[in-house]
Amino acid sequence: MKFKPIDPNFESRVRASFDRQSAMKTLGVEISRLEAGRVELVMPYREVYSQQHGFVHAGILATALDSACGYAAFSLMPDDAAVLTVEFKINLLAPAAGDRFVFCAHVVKAGRTITVCEGEAFAMKNQASKLIATMTGTMMALFERGDVKH
Amino acid sequence: MKFKPIDPNFESRVRASFDRQSAMKTLGVEISRLEAGRVELVMPYREVYSQQHGFVHAGILATALDSACGYAAFSLMPDDAAVLTVEFKINLLAPAAGDRFVFCAHVVKAGRTITVCEGEAFAMKNQASKLIATMTGTMMALFERGDVKH
Amino acid sequence: MKFKPIDPNFESRVRASFDRQSAMKTLGVEISRLEAGRVELVMPYREVYSQQHGFVHAGILATALDSACGYAAFSLMPDDAAVLTVEFKINLLAPAAGDRFVFCAHVVKAGRTITVCEGEAFAMKNQASKLIATMTGTMMALFERGDVKH
Amino acid sequence: MKFKPIDPNFESRVRASFDRQSAMKTLGVEISRLEAGRVELVMPYREVYSQQHGFVHAGILATALDSACGYAAFSLMPDDAAVLTVEFKINLLAPAAGDRFVFCAHVVKAGRTITVCEGEAFAMKNQASKLIATMTGTMMALFERGDVKH
Repeated sequence: MKFKPIDPNFESRVRASFDRQSAMKTLGVEISRLEAGRVELVMPYREVYSQQHGFVHAGILATALDSACGYAAFSLMPDDAAVLTVEFKINLLAPAAGDRFVFCAHVVKAGRTITVCEGEAFAMKNQASKLIATMTGTMMALFERGDVKH
Repeated sequence: MKFKPIDPNFESRVRASFDRQSAMKTLGVEISRLEAGRVELVMPYREVYSQQHGFVHAGILATALDSACGYAAFSLMPDDAAVLTVEFKINLLAPAAGDRFVFCAHVVKAGRTITVCEGEAFAMKNQASKLIATMTGTMMALFERGDVKH
Repeated sequence: MKFKPIDPNFESRVRASFDRQSAMKTLGVEISRLEAGRVELVMPYREVYSQQHGFVHAGILATALDSACGYAAFSLMPDDAAVLTVEFKINLLAPAAGDRFVFCAHVVKAGRTITVCEGEAFAMKNQASKLIATMTGTMMALFERGDVKH
Repeated sequence: MKFKPIDPNFESRVRASFDRQSAMKTLGVEISRLEAGRVELVMPYREVYSQQHGFVHAGILATALDSACGYAAFSLMPDDAAVLTVEFKINLLAPAAGDRFVFCAHVVKAGRTITVCEGEAFAMKNQASKLIATMTGTMMALFERGDVKH
């Protein structure tokens, strides 16, 4: 599906907001692809974010997927909107074992207030890629809220 | 609701597994309460895990809530089980603004294979507590899997 | 939790809208309790809405729980709002075997636009009651939409 | 994605179980396509299953989507398994206004115990088709349970 962005400068707006997400820098997450309604992030494996079996913690996968979904939604919003996550659901399909992880999100339905996104997480090992998680997220555009900068 | 644990040594088993979750140590999450079927965790605010508005990233809240749900489920499992998250859903109710955060999870239904848990996240500021997120998670008991230590 | 309704006539407004839900009448669902932010519905067992094992179909439980959540949210909205379901998630905890079923929903967080609700479904058999499903739902208040009457 | 069924007779097994779902017959839902890991259902509009605005009730959409997901999962299970829904989540994207409705579900990950499916609901009006809802569902294979026939 091809989306037409309301804001022609969506790319710089998304990148500027992403750069303000300290959590992304801390986890080593970077934008590897950015289009209107579509975001791809990449994250290295770091043992300090693992769960008890040595795999990446489900919540850390959710953190990157939530950002991917949020910025896919944000890319289609007008330039005075802030984006907040209303809710998301993640299914864990396989152990998060890999050297690095790729998170692909796209907008399913963009509305004035509510935007619904889907995301997929892949574990990369050598040259192989494996689907390890899927997310559905509901994002909201916020306007004129002094306490929430975009 | 009061649960009767199958494993009388559930507490040491939960603590040992929790201590192997590097992600918990890295995020500064600690167990503040532990009963059969019920876990409470606490986490300090750290700017390095914030999103673009300075609040704690939704995924970081999900990380702590998922661990709380997972260990609530694990506490009721037999001592040869490993626990894995099948899926979870989180609703974000208010900005995660606070000095520290408390995560309370309890088992709703414990089954042989599937255990369903609910969790709540609270932001603590001065002496006030505010509900900021709710989670429902589905956990699975795994047996005899060589690649997954409990 | 005690909610203060914006609209003092919420009860007649909820009942009037509920009476327009043909699906409720068709399924035999009735309001058994109604307060600001809290709704209880009751439904008889009917074999024609069962799944392959003779239990009530999960989606029929979801239908009643969604209405319970929706009207719990609607009861706290202003009198010119329409309510729509953004999304819901349901966990099925036990087979829906019973003579009748009770659905209890309450508001967890009421916002200007978004209201989050939780619901529980119980199977009643003789005098016993058993928790069979839980729901979390996200509801939205809609204003000034010609195609959506409240 | 192409799935290889364990049971070569999956089609007759799925159809026989579907025919035992009274709820499908009552709602007028029929199988319009059936492959290993993939099911398509179709349902006419009936005013008696509408919500307060005259659209199909979200829970009725969920009922058909849940069956589509369940039978997509069931098609890949061995012939002595019963299928139960553990949980599902549905996002409502647009009003369910149409003459008939199509529900497409496919397996995302098939496991020994847990199978994850995704589904989409479309409203058909004249010759146009519109995406109105998405579902993610977690299904479980049950073996040797006397109270649950497959």
